[in-house]
Amino acid sequence: MNGAESLVRTLLGSGVDTCFANPGTSEMHFVAALDRIPGMRCVLGLFEGVVTGAADGYARMTGRPAATLMHCGPGLANGLSNLHNARRARSPIVNCVGDLATYHRPLDAPLTADTEGWARGVSAWVRTARSAREVGADAAVAVQAARTSPGQIATLILPSDTCWDEGGEVAPALPVPVAPEVAPFVVDVARRLLLGGERVALVLGSAALGEGALADAHRIAAATGALLIAPGQNARIARGRGRHPIERMPYPVEAGRALMAGVRHVILVGAPAPAFFFAYPGKPGRPYPEDADVCVLARPEQDAPAALAALAGELGAPAVPPPATERPDPARGVITPESFARSLAALLPEQAVVVDESLTFGRALFPPTHCAAPHDWIQLTGGSIGDGLPLATGAAMGAPGRRVVTLQADGSALYTVQALWTQARERLDVTTIIFNNRRYAILQGELIAVGANPGRTALDLMDLSNPDLDWVRIAEGFGVAAARAETMERLNDLLTQSCAQRGPFLIDLAV
Amino acid sequence: MNGAESLVRTLLGSGVDTCFANPGTSEMHFVAALDRIPGMRCVLGLFEGVVTGAADGYARMTGRPAATLMHCGPGLANGLSNLHNARRARSPIVNCVGDLATYHRPLDAPLTADTEGWARGVSAWVRTARSAREVGADAAVAVQAARTSPGQIATLILPSDTCWDEGGEVAPALPVPVAPEVAPFVVDVARRLLLGGERVALVLGSAALGEGALADAHRIAAATGALLIAPGQNARIARGRGRHPIERMPYPVEAGRALMAGVRHVILVGAPAPAFFFAYPGKPGRPYPEDADVCVLARPEQDAPAALAALAGELGAPAVPPPATERPDPARGVITPESFARSLAALLPEQAVVVDESLTFGRALFPPTHCAAPHDWIQLTGGSIGDGLPLATGAAMGAPGRRVVTLQADGSALYTVQALWTQARERLDVTTIIFNNRRYAILQGELIAVGANPGRTALDLMDLSNPDLDWVRIAEGFGVAAARAETMERLNDLLTQSCAQRGPFLIDLAV
Repeated sequence: MNGAESLVRTLLGSGVDTCFANPGTSEMHFVAALDRIPGMRCVLGLFEGVVTGAADGYARMTGRPAATLMHCGPGLANGLSNLHNARRARSPIVNCVGDLATYHRPLDAPLTADTEGWARGVSAWVRTARSAREVGADAAVAVQAARTSPGQIATLILPSDTCWDEGGEVAPALPVPVAPEVAPFVVDVARRLLLGGERVALVLGSAALGEGALADAHRIAAATGALLIAPGQNARIARGRGRHPIERMPYPVEAGRALMAGVRHVILVGAPAPAFFFAYPGKPGRPYPEDADVCVLARPEQDAPAALAALAGELGAPAVPPPATERPDPARGVITPESFARSLAALLPEQAVVVDESLTFGRALFPPTHCAAPHDWIQLTGGSIGDGLPLATGAAMGAPGRRVVTLQADGSALYTVQALWTQARERLDVTTIIFNNRRYAILQGELIAVGANPGRTALDLMDLSNPDLDWVRIAEGFGVAAARAETMERLNDLLTQSCAQRGPFLIDLAV
Repeated sequence: MNGAESLVRTLLGSGVDTCFANPGTSEMHFVAALDRIPGMRCVLGLFEGVVTGAADGYARMTGRPAATLMHCGPGLANGLSNLHNARRARSPIVNCVGDLATYHRPLDAPLTADTEGWARGVSAWVRTARSAREVGADAAVAVQAARTSPGQIATLILPSDTCWDEGGEVAPALPVPVAPEVAPFVVDVARRLLLGGERVALVLGSAALGEGALADAHRIAAATGALLIAPGQNARIARGRGRHPIERMPYPVEAGRALMAGVRHVILVGAPAPAFFFAYPGKPGRPYPEDADVCVLARPEQDAPAALAALAGELGAPAVPPPATERPDPARGVITPESFARSLAALLPEQAVVVDESLTFGRALFPPTHCAAPHDWIQLTGGSIGDGLPLATGAAMGAPGRRVVTLQADGSALYTVQALWTQARERLDVTTIIFNNRRYAILQGELIAVGANPGRTALDLMDLSNPDLDWVRIAEGFGVAAARAETMERLNDLLTQSCAQRGPFLIDLAV
């Protein structure tokens, strides 16, 4: 057995059965091994950013790592920005990066690069395999590292001779440590803060945004008056009719400060201490008051849902029903964020997955869509735009039978537009809605926010017209059927139709 | 004056007047400064790989650095793979990477990343600005570093407060050291090796591939019988009718070994010691015999053309005329590498720039196109595919009035397809020819080369059909007119027409 075979067999034995791949020459033995060994579902991406973003989306829906397959340092480099987003989402991923043979590397052939150096910035675990004999063991440790709570990125670099040499040994799956429990005295500290008569905010992240954890958080809030808030960017939120809503931290500084005004205690539940996305001259970097205390109920790797349940229990807080909400009728007429939100709430299928890289147009969409059918909402987590189409691709792979609806800003969509082809090839049930405003609207807002008055040069750098991008042609070029909507009626029809049939569809929404 | 203004004024004063940009929020003060200060030509790319590849193409045609403008660590990460190619081409580039404010960074907001760490792998010089007062001086040193022979990548990271704070100071341009001369005794060593009666190969790279240097190399070869060879990947080669040809190192191991069989002395002239692109089990990594000596006439940073001229003079080698070549007639009928090469040689306009990321289909195109009108041939240098469309974009910016013809493999084109939009927006004179074989043909060859017999899984990972990519729609979607050619007659017509008019055009060539 060569090293590549031991790698594939070890991954399968460790529960990794999906591989998002953009292979190159140095990965041919890996590819050949995939041929010989059944059980690994291989999904081709035409660009590494598609591969890594899809692995992120898959992990968010399944809780399990997929493997990626990329080619040498530069191939990994193309996947880094969506690995950055995955790191922020705490998604488990096992990257397999082929590289030049150990003995070829000193010759400094053109593709020679600092593969390890590039991997470190996104990976909790990095190793370069040394020999075929060790590849299996390396792979088992990589999967263990990826599955360690709350989910991490592990990168295994495979010089080509470690894959083609004989002597490979399959390694058994390693145990995955369970998420550490929160100590009772920590729960008690939180209880006393909540009962102390001062204003308290619970910041809920990661696993604390599941359906049961949110229900427990609402018990706590109802009993104590605490503010519940999620970070602005989240890996996955369970929401919709019959579930408890959660507000996200607003993006603008003023709105965030207003929300947390008067808060004396910030209790973190699987979330980092909130900070604004960017600094602005003369404005604070944190949404909470300078004199607030920050304490931790559950670190991200701890069992936050159990901690919330324990805390609600200690408080003797009774269950509270979720708010009564009704499905609205679809909106008609002019396309606005408000009318769009109304139609989305009306038409979103049961158990849909909403992928949100909507940026400026989408800021107002979150609250009014809680009345949609139950769904998961997954977001751009690391701010590196170009994640939406790949995330949707991987989410659809990880949640078969559920419709994925991607709310996608036009500028951001262009970074990894190649994902559409993978959606077409795999016949994934994804409806992509491009919010086509023909500009980097977020930058126009930011330029004004920093006090500048944009002139011709600046406007040109934020303008996506001249020439206009024809999204219908682009989608069709990549094999995805598409149509343009300029009214809410047309959007309603296209959204309804696309959700009723199998396979991907793209709606070019004029906004 | 704020830091951003001092940056723009210093860049302009140091001779950098073109900026390829994909700005984000943290670069808004830089953008605002570009608005207020005339003189910087700003070119928007829709993805950072377009930005860095275009800066590379611009540098190859002008010999001068452009600036790039990118957004935080993840934005830089998207540009790394084409910076890797630029590093291999020894192209001067000044990267300006905006980042989070110095005092916001400790808050670990979502975009926080190891920007310096990612920059190091491609940059000869990396610095993070500390204050607005120092930004001008930092920029002047960055330009000096980029322009230091033979051309380097300098990356200046700019936390947003160093740009918005007042106190900026414009720094004067710093002197650029000239390329070091080669010592006479080194020339004499080469002379004696060439006259020693043993087989000698001169490996010519970088500046030794200019018209005059190649003429001197041919004087030496004619006088001594030395073999002349260029690396397989080169930043720029001057060629065409009336110029001296140069053969490139073949990609296959067997062909490279055959070419250098019997060579006892390898003399490097601005080139690294040749190595094959990849290792293969049981095959050598170098094309020259194991017992050959390698010596250096000129290191890449030295004045290789002067060294060749001195060597030819020391040898008393008379000038030799370039081979007599005639422009062929365009080919007709079936599209093959041979017929394509013939038509390209026939129809290439005078002083065209050929950008070559043709990979498998293009391997046979180089020798038979030397009989084309005089042109420059620029290539993918670092093996990180997805460079052709951006390189062409930057080359067209750097060589106005000259037609750029891009020989582009279909799989590789998809990595940075967004470059087409920049070509449309800037109305660049680029004809892109997509060699559309609907597969990663290079991988199929490599899989067989490593002894594997591809099965269904492997073939699916190398197949770009299912669904077919419609290149005409993709190009039109990005604003570039396009047409498909399935015969040589149609190709001839489209190539002729596109070269006769202004602006970009794409030919989807069925191969």
